[in-house]
Amino acid sequence: MSGITTSGEKKLKLFSGRAHPELAKEVAEALGTELVPTKALDFANGEIYVRFLDSARGADCFVMQSHTAPINQWIMEQLIMIDALKRASAKSITAILPFYGYARQDKKHLGREPISARLVADLLRQAGADRLMAVDLHTAQIQGFFDGPVDHLFALPLLADYIGGKVDRDKLTVVSPDAGRVKVADQWCDRLDAPLAIIHKRRDITQANTILSADVVGDVKGRVCVLVDDMIDTAGTICAAADALFDNGAADVVVAATHGVLSGPAADRLKNSRVSEFVFTNTLPTPASIQLDKITTLSIAPSIAAAIREVFEEGSVTSLFEGVH
Amino acid sequence: MSGITTSGEKKLKLFSGRAHPELAKEVAEALGTELVPTKALDFANGEIYVRFLDSARGADCFVMQSHTAPINQWIMEQLIMIDALKRASAKSITAILPFYGYARQDKKHLGREPISARLVADLLRQAGADRLMAVDLHTAQIQGFFDGPVDHLFALPLLADYIGGKVDRDKLTVVSPDAGRVKVADQWCDRLDAPLAIIHKRRDITQANTILSADVVGDVKGRVCVLVDDMIDTAGTICAAADALFDNGAADVVVAATHGVLSGPAADRLKNSRVSEFVFTNTLPTPASIQLDKITTLSIAPSIAAAIREVFEEGSVTSLFEGVH
Amino acid sequence: MSGITTSGEKKLKLFSGRAHPELAKEVAEALGTELVPTKALDFANGEIYVRFLDSARGADCFVMQSHTAPINQWIMEQLIMIDALKRASAKSITAILPFYGYARQDKKHLGREPISARLVADLLRQAGADRLMAVDLHTAQIQGFFDGPVDHLFALPLLADYIGGKVDRDKLTVVSPDAGRVKVADQWCDRLDAPLAIIHKRRDITQANTILSADVVGDVKGRVCVLVDDMIDTAGTICAAADALFDNGAADVVVAATHGVLSGPAADRLKNSRVSEFVFTNTLPTPASIQLDKITTLSIAPSIAAAIREVFEEGSVTSLFEGVH
Amino acid sequence: MSGITTSGEKKLKLFSGRAHPELAKEVAEALGTELVPTKALDFANGEIYVRFLDSARGADCFVMQSHTAPINQWIMEQLIMIDALKRASAKSITAILPFYGYARQDKKHLGREPISARLVADLLRQAGADRLMAVDLHTAQIQGFFDGPVDHLFALPLLADYIGGKVDRDKLTVVSPDAGRVKVADQWCDRLDAPLAIIHKRRDITQANTILSADVVGDVKGRVCVLVDDMIDTAGTICAAADALFDNGAADVVVAATHGVLSGPAADRLKNSRVSEFVFTNTLPTPASIQLDKITTLSIAPSIAAAIREVFEEGSVTSLFEGVH
Amino acid sequence: MSGITTSGEKKLKLFSGRAHPELAKEVAEALGTELVPTKALDFANGEIYVRFLDSARGADCFVMQSHTAPINQWIMEQLIMIDALKRASAKSITAILPFYGYARQDKKHLGREPISARLVADLLRQAGADRLMAVDLHTAQIQGFFDGPVDHLFALPLLADYIGGKVDRDKLTVVSPDAGRVKVADQWCDRLDAPLAIIHKRRDITQANTILSADVVGDVKGRVCVLVDDMIDTAGTICAAADALFDNGAADVVVAATHGVLSGPAADRLKNSRVSEFVFTNTLPTPASIQLDKITTLSIAPSIAAAIREVFEEGSVTSLFEGVH
Amino acid sequence: MSGITTSGEKKLKLFSGRAHPELAKEVAEALGTELVPTKALDFANGEIYVRFLDSARGADCFVMQSHTAPINQWIMEQLIMIDALKRASAKSITAILPFYGYARQDKKHLGREPISARLVADLLRQAGADRLMAVDLHTAQIQGFFDGPVDHLFALPLLADYIGGKVDRDKLTVVSPDAGRVKVADQWCDRLDAPLAIIHKRRDITQANTILSADVVGDVKGRVCVLVDDMIDTAGTICAAADALFDNGAADVVVAATHGVLSGPAADRLKNSRVSEFVFTNTLPTPASIQLDKITTLSIAPSIAAAIREVFEEGSVTSLFEGVH
Repeated sequence: MSGITTSGEKKLKLFSGRAHPELAKEVAEALGTELVPTKALDFANGEIYVRFLDSARGADCFVMQSHTAPINQWIMEQLIMIDALKRASAKSITAILPFYGYARQDKKHLGREPISARLVADLLRQAGADRLMAVDLHTAQIQGFFDGPVDHLFALPLLADYIGGKVDRDKLTVVSPDAGRVKVADQWCDRLDAPLAIIHKRRDITQANTILSADVVGDVKGRVCVLVDDMIDTAGTICAAADALFDNGAADVVVAATHGVLSGPAADRLKNSRVSEFVFTNTLPTPASIQLDKITTLSIAPSIAAAIREVFEEGSVTSLFEGVH
Repeated sequence: MSGITTSGEKKLKLFSGRAHPELAKEVAEALGTELVPTKALDFANGEIYVRFLDSARGADCFVMQSHTAPINQWIMEQLIMIDALKRASAKSITAILPFYGYARQDKKHLGREPISARLVADLLRQAGADRLMAVDLHTAQIQGFFDGPVDHLFALPLLADYIGGKVDRDKLTVVSPDAGRVKVADQWCDRLDAPLAIIHKRRDITQANTILSADVVGDVKGRVCVLVDDMIDTAGTICAAADALFDNGAADVVVAATHGVLSGPAADRLKNSRVSEFVFTNTLPTPASIQLDKITTLSIAPSIAAAIREVFEEGSVTSLFEGVH
Repeated sequence: MSGITTSGEKKLKLFSGRAHPELAKEVAEALGTELVPTKALDFANGEIYVRFLDSARGADCFVMQSHTAPINQWIMEQLIMIDALKRASAKSITAILPFYGYARQDKKHLGREPISARLVADLLRQAGADRLMAVDLHTAQIQGFFDGPVDHLFALPLLADYIGGKVDRDKLTVVSPDAGRVKVADQWCDRLDAPLAIIHKRRDITQANTILSADVVGDVKGRVCVLVDDMIDTAGTICAAADALFDNGAADVVVAATHGVLSGPAADRLKNSRVSEFVFTNTLPTPASIQLDKITTLSIAPSIAAAIREVFEEGSVTSLFEGVH
Repeated sequence: MSGITTSGEKKLKLFSGRAHPELAKEVAEALGTELVPTKALDFANGEIYVRFLDSARGADCFVMQSHTAPINQWIMEQLIMIDALKRASAKSITAILPFYGYARQDKKHLGREPISARLVADLLRQAGADRLMAVDLHTAQIQGFFDGPVDHLFALPLLADYIGGKVDRDKLTVVSPDAGRVKVADQWCDRLDAPLAIIHKRRDITQANTILSADVVGDVKGRVCVLVDDMIDTAGTICAAADALFDNGAADVVVAATHGVLSGPAADRLKNSRVSEFVFTNTLPTPASIQLDKITTLSIAPSIAAAIREVFEEGSVTSLFEGVH
Repeated sequence: MSGITTSGEKKLKLFSGRAHPELAKEVAEALGTELVPTKALDFANGEIYVRFLDSARGADCFVMQSHTAPINQWIMEQLIMIDALKRASAKSITAILPFYGYARQDKKHLGREPISARLVADLLRQAGADRLMAVDLHTAQIQGFFDGPVDHLFALPLLADYIGGKVDRDKLTVVSPDAGRVKVADQWCDRLDAPLAIIHKRRDITQANTILSADVVGDVKGRVCVLVDDMIDTAGTICAAADALFDNGAADVVVAATHGVLSGPAADRLKNSRVSEFVFTNTLPTPASIQLDKITTLSIAPSIAAAIREVFEEGSVTSLFEGVH
Repeated sequence: MSGITTSGEKKLKLFSGRAHPELAKEVAEALGTELVPTKALDFANGEIYVRFLDSARGADCFVMQSHTAPINQWIMEQLIMIDALKRASAKSITAILPFYGYARQDKKHLGREPISARLVADLLRQAGADRLMAVDLHTAQIQGFFDGPVDHLFALPLLADYIGGKVDRDKLTVVSPDAGRVKVADQWCDRLDAPLAIIHKRRDITQANTILSADVVGDVKGRVCVLVDDMIDTAGTICAAADALFDNGAADVVVAATHGVLSGPAADRLKNSRVSEFVFTNTLPTPASIQLDKITTLSIAPSIAAAIREVFEEGSVTSLFEGVH
């Protein structure tokens, strides 16, 4: 009979853009492999050039890029890498976004605005991504922006277990910095068996990074407050929230967030804040300008590596995060 | 020179499915036109047959369907109508969803769940819809599920002005039944110059229509509380919230919501509730089984008609809802 | 060298909607496996919720749903199941439609009609189906409505062998109830070595389920007539055809059809008909209201199971149906 | 305010490939315009070059091509013309296929066959066609192969009125050459108030252009039989059908068909047949080798021109063919 | 009859990103209109926010962005602007790229490279662009990368007429700096009635911006040489070419190029070069660091404005550039 | 647990159209397999019928077709074969185009022209091709016309090694017949360590197959000149180039080209030319009318077979052509 038959095999290859190579290397090590050697450089006018030095043909390719500053450059680099893999006959392409850029632009507040978070999903799809993997999306609906599977990882177990192992549980109160974050804070309460407080604030949506007011709801007097959020960007909101907690008698305030964006005035605000500890994961590189003793960085690499392994071995990513959603 | 030239003109045609013809007729009247005569019937085995009795060629076609029960039938009918219009050479097709079905399934809570709200957007697009128009989407991110323009209408002015004209403003407190609804409640507060209270509750996401607990945050004693929400479905949550308000000393409770879904046990719950008035719009037909004096229904038809007119005349839908988002 | 390599393996998973679980269970048994445990329920307002309790990642997934009444609900459920599988990283998704809903709306008879059979194919594709499997499509052209492979199964061997084993072959005449069905009837004649008769009738296409007249072409006097069709819906046509055969002297009439839709007045018509036996397959569940001794139901499950096995093991579905088309 | 506003206008432009320019010119004349001057030639290796000499920007472009021999060349030319129009900023592109090539390959008879009629629809869509216009599709389901509007024209009124005006109505019998064509023959009967006869034959689907047998059903003795079909290709079937009619005592046989494909042995068969007249439309050019007095060619150009005008002026194509389907 | 009819009108709106607003303003002035007021800013972490302050509904929208440094930021901004226009119901969107970024990455030189020029076309299309307009694409094949119309403008008339009006024609020799540019140089020769010389060089494709050697082919002794190219980036090649011309006895060398990219070492190279004049158009802003008397900048704005007018008024862009290609 | 698991395997199947079966057979032999038996024929009116006689389900299918005359027929046949494979559940489909038809129509020279090379890529994609494999594309940018991987093979090693083994290296000069081909000629020079000469000519783009003039740049006196090109079509250009070389004192001229299209006047021109040897590969069949002793045909089959093997075994096609691009 016509044709040739061989036994099939599956290959995993891990690639990293230049945005946050340290995290990618950690993930590779956790997987027991190495990153595919990649030539990547900027031409004099800023155009990016990428070439992979190993064959990607027939492999399940995972392309990591954290959308840190300069964010548009790194998004473009990831798109270019995906295009190159598509044209190099990759079997499947999973874009890993430890931090998903433009996630906060997930709806139109006003007429004639873009929905840039959907645009990012569309661009990745157009370039050739078959699947996304992301950590703590700003809103869970972003999963629905991508026309394909999205593996959603959670840093909550990592962060909560660290806090839980360090703070006196009897004094602990979990604080949501925003009514919109209460559902996540509830899960912290469940996991740490702690009471909840809420900061109620209003944001001016037409002005970037500004807040109007912050009121504390719930009892925080004499408590060790853990302010939990998905990301800390300019840190204005969170530092004001911490101040409000101290003003209401909090004994101490710790901030725990998945993504330490820490842009603009964040460096000064963290330094000057009365918050005793800021706990982040390393989904984003910590800016060189912000080296403070009170910042603790936990590695998300083991979680990403475990998820990659589940994807590659066709297990269940969901099972890695039982009880979190 | 070869070719034929004529002056162009624009035509608007309004179509309605069988789910809620009364609303469509009101919209047609407000526009000063009539619905396109349509033959629609069910074959004996439940397959739907649709045929339009006027030409749709070259027209900007608007296809209304409220996703009320039996919801899957009416979604399918709207898809079939859109397919027929596409094949009949409609110039553009706008699907109007006064109530957008499956909007609550807008993300995965657990592994191996669908994102049915995205699916509905994709099905409408596939069938041939170029644009969506919807009233008070359950979450604004659903705009991003559709690959095209979404005109998002708001019932807040209609509802708030009604309440504001009826209740003693000095005694009024706006209440958000859920932390996730605080941003909308804030807008009520701004518009009515009233204070805010919040019900904090947790929902069991694996069980449909159940709640765990409800605590009141803010001062409601002796106040006339307006509980605001986007939709009332089985009414369990909202009636429990009202009870919590009365338990905390509220003088009266009024419920205002855009969509009166009112399914299952809602009839009994509304009847037995101490809430003095339920105010809905007619985005959905009120079930025949629920005819209560304390239900007030405001017509959304003028808003939809105004939006259609802005779309057709290429004005601005945004301008109809200044200050709402 | 970078990367991880393992031997590949293939996994088959079988899922069923709630329309006709008995058939799905039979198919699973014939395959020697079990259906993937699935949570499926209707929310109070009719929205469907589906979740799979086993991982589908990397598996060749087969999703069965018979499009029986309430047909739009079951089509929607199948679409939602496919969406969930797509987002759960299924390797491939085959939608199995033992009965393909809306198959009779396969062309425009009049202007401004839909082509709903094409729409159903498009919706399945959009939701994420890679392949269709269907039994006895109303017209073979429907294969061309789907942009991908369609495995087309035939009940003719099953039905014809049953009839052939029961009826006196010397007295047997195959009867086509409609000129459009003559090609299928010819195949019955070949398989059973029997003569052919034809009923010539005209259908009023603007009225559902009505016939105008029925004339018998060919010799049926004293013969045992087997009326063959793809589906029996309201049974008006087929019972009139049977009457015409008896009026022309037929000794007995047996009806054999793949799909027993049996909606509306079918129950009464079958009961009151002089037809001695109605033979269907179980592509559709027999309505509870129609329990007649003269109905014989043959199981299509072994054929579907065999076809699934050929698909999964990359054999030939065509070879299962040699000589049928 | 920013922007520039002008009154809009609509432009129609008519283009023709090289397959059948006479028909295109007739259509242009009937519309009162001229074909857009077009440079089209074959390079030495057979590659086609096309360029339009007038601007197509912003125009509703209609591109005529009859799929006559060499059929693949003319399909490719039409695709190339459409590509050029798409890139030249045509506002809309309607592909006019007086004869739709590959229409008979509309389903899979056997495994591993193509569905070439769907492929042709997909290729036209991919190249840039927004709408199709075709005359008497071989099967109406082909409308559903195209993802967009299909304007389906019918030659029945043209052919039937010609026959009706020439033959003694009292002696006329309409004959369907095939059970599959009975529905069309029924419409002839209605229009001409004549009785029906049917030829029952089986075709060997694995061999091109062969028939097995032909039996006459119905009374044709002493009658003037009008054999009606959509197309006459090699003429083997139709001439055998005519022989069968004469063998059964027909007084005369006339053949009426929309499409005179007339390939291969058709020239000899027509010449040698006892059929007194063959009536075709000019959807296809009559091969130069077939110049027989007994061939009558009626022009379809007025019908196509009328349909183009309805499309351009956004009227109703359906209304041109009341009662035909 | 149902429906509403009005006379149609066409609206043009011009938008500009922040990359090169001076050019956009010139184009707007040449058109006799103003840019649509636009709010565009960078959030602290580099994410771009865009909102248009005028309605775009129903308008033919033209979105200008020159892909200058930081190139990835400006590409992303253009994509975001297009997304916002798509969601704001623009009737059509034309992306104007006076300089098309990544145009040099138009093929794979080596395995596992991207084709970034195609990617840029795909991203623009995905975001919502219907048409591209670009000036002097690096290779004409890039037109074929976009699935839609591309209006290709040429700076040759502008540049050549300037040179022709300034240099002694009798002494003029046109020089192609590369064998690949000879076809364009030929057109200069035709227009200026001048002889041609060629520099033959080889580029090391694995190293960015490096050359190997440069030989002069043709007579340049005592001649005023016009070196013509599409773009000058780091200026290494062109300055080496000029040196080679002087080494071969050229009396003077003038450089004319459409795009003055002028990145990296270009500032020093231009300053130190013996070339007497560099003539560019303003498709790109001249870097602030490069202010040299010997740089002449001609405005491309009138050409872009003329092309926009032809597009909007449905005339012919081709006719603007007779004899150029 | 539910589901069935088996070890996976990979299957390769090779198919050939009727354009150039000899090459396909050679490739099959080089791979150690046979072509899948295929029934392919033309119906009387020119429509193509194709059916595969082996199952293609789950196989990596490679479909060879050389785009020789009648070129449109063979392109259509390849599209039909791909459609049949798609519908037969092929796992992947690679279209192999030893000669890619319409490759010279890769851009618009003038307004209202098509870009037929892009169209061919789109048609192949639409029909179902996942990957292309081609030999010496006319311009490398055509890789970017296909939305997927393109494996680009090079005949240069084959041709150059043949020439290098036959001609006195000391006397050898490589000649580019066109400035646009200099980059390829450079690679010949590198490989054979030979000097370069260039023919400078201008082509009239509005007239097919004509040249204006041909000048020799570089020293060819007494040299054995190897004129290298990608294809020889009507041979007018190349024979004129050879004449120019002889006129400039060349001792001998050999022509080496990948594709021997050899259409129209080529037969006479080759016969009458002073060129001593024409070396082609067999990407195209040599027309029967051109049987000349001075034509040498080298087989490209081993290269294609090696590339197929690399694709199937997921190795690197790039590695087969080190140093060529």
